[in-house]
Amino acid sequence: MINLVLLGSGNVATHLYRAFSASEKVKVMQVYNHSTNGLTAFEGKTPVTTSLEELAEADVYLLALKDDVIAGVAQKLESKKGLVAHTSGAVSLSAIEGCPRPGVFYPLQTFSRDKKVNYSEIPFCLEAKNPDDLALLKTMAGEISGKAYEISSAQRKKLHLSAVFVCNFVNHLYTIGESICEENKIPFEILQPLIQETANKVRTSSPSEVQTGPAIRYDESTIQAHLELLKDRDNKEIYQTLTKAIQNFHGKKL
Amino acid sequence: MINLVLLGSGNVATHLYRAFSASEKVKVMQVYNHSTNGLTAFEGKTPVTTSLEELAEADVYLLALKDDVIAGVAQKLESKKGLVAHTSGAVSLSAIEGCPRPGVFYPLQTFSRDKKVNYSEIPFCLEAKNPDDLALLKTMAGEISGKAYEISSAQRKKLHLSAVFVCNFVNHLYTIGESICEENKIPFEILQPLIQETANKVRTSSPSEVQTGPAIRYDESTIQAHLELLKDRDNKEIYQTLTKAIQNFHGKKL
Repeated sequence: MINLVLLGSGNVATHLYRAFSASEKVKVMQVYNHSTNGLTAFEGKTPVTTSLEELAEADVYLLALKDDVIAGVAQKLESKKGLVAHTSGAVSLSAIEGCPRPGVFYPLQTFSRDKKVNYSEIPFCLEAKNPDDLALLKTMAGEISGKAYEISSAQRKKLHLSAVFVCNFVNHLYTIGESICEENKIPFEILQPLIQETANKVRTSSPSEVQTGPAIRYDESTIQAHLELLKDRDNKEIYQTLTKAIQNFHGKKL
Repeated sequence: MINLVLLGSGNVATHLYRAFSASEKVKVMQVYNHSTNGLTAFEGKTPVTTSLEELAEADVYLLALKDDVIAGVAQKLESKKGLVAHTSGAVSLSAIEGCPRPGVFYPLQTFSRDKKVNYSEIPFCLEAKNPDDLALLKTMAGEISGKAYEISSAQRKKLHLSAVFVCNFVNHLYTIGESICEENKIPFEILQPLIQETANKVRTSSPSEVQTGPAIRYDESTIQAHLELLKDRDNKEIYQTLTKAIQNFHGKKL
């Protein structure tokens, strides 16, 4: 049994807690949060604390905390014998290497607190200083998902950057689509099959090979007509920037 | 039985032909294309022609043609008694209203020639001048999909614009994610579950309500770190433009 202390109470902590609850190899023996606020959801299920002094002795301390407090909290765990791992895409391993056994346990997924997630499909990006700790992180990831990758800090930063493009920025493009529909009394559901198919296509095809639309066709009359329809300045700028980028990217490759 | 002449041999024409082949109410009696090139795929299956003079008498002439030739071809069909409908998102009904019974039969989906499509989920945007023709288009759409919407030319233009954002531009963001992965020897498959979940989320939630990431958090240190990692000028500009747009959009709403 791997005894684990979970630090944090946000979306990532909440989902990891739920996922580990079903595990027979990992036991969450304590949840820490700096304030009692976030802990109410865990009370009655598992011991909780707001004091780093009161952390139990554990095999693993999992820091599912905001990026800017990870290093500070890790510093206070430097005397711990257990593995200290954070769950951030953007913080390097070196930020917590004052701990004798630092690690990274980064689930590459977008979590909303109340939305169910298919845990078995979450890719875990793992990093550790020694092979035994990497194996321990792999065992933990295996209890949640079938997908674990050894990813260096430098790679993880690039992966996190990629995720901003394919998740956060993509979601804003959905938002623009929705707002254009709303303004014109068109049900947003009409766009759903297109959204799903666009995402689906890149399971089996490289996105660079399935690019369609007026930009890659250099269809200037449609591009001009679209720019005239766009009243919002930001949306117009996004349209221009992405059209130019698509033409530069695919032009370069010819 | 609805007798139909299909004009065009591109992705949309090919997929509509396949979809109607399974129909018991619609029969594709002839396929037209301006050159023999595109017709080889249809030969032996259905009568083909390269001459508009030789078009059969039909209930419906379906113009699955490039936007800029639709009006010209329609002009040559002005003596036809059948319904003349085009499949374009961007061309208005008025462009073909020299025909006595003009219509629009616009499938809102991204088609790749060789990729299977779940036809039953394609939303059809329909428009016609008289109720009987609209009913005819609805019957045709019903043979392919359960989803048909009456959409005006003005709405359809906005819908087509929305589709550029949620499909073409989204696909380019996937392309950027893929190229960052490739440059850093990270398998692109790691991003797949995130891509699918991001698309999945907006089936049940408004995208404006599930926006996450450094932009909406005003996480300046991550934004700066990301901009430093981005070497490609277009990618950097997309990052800046979308970050600003997310902050403006969500700032406005507060």
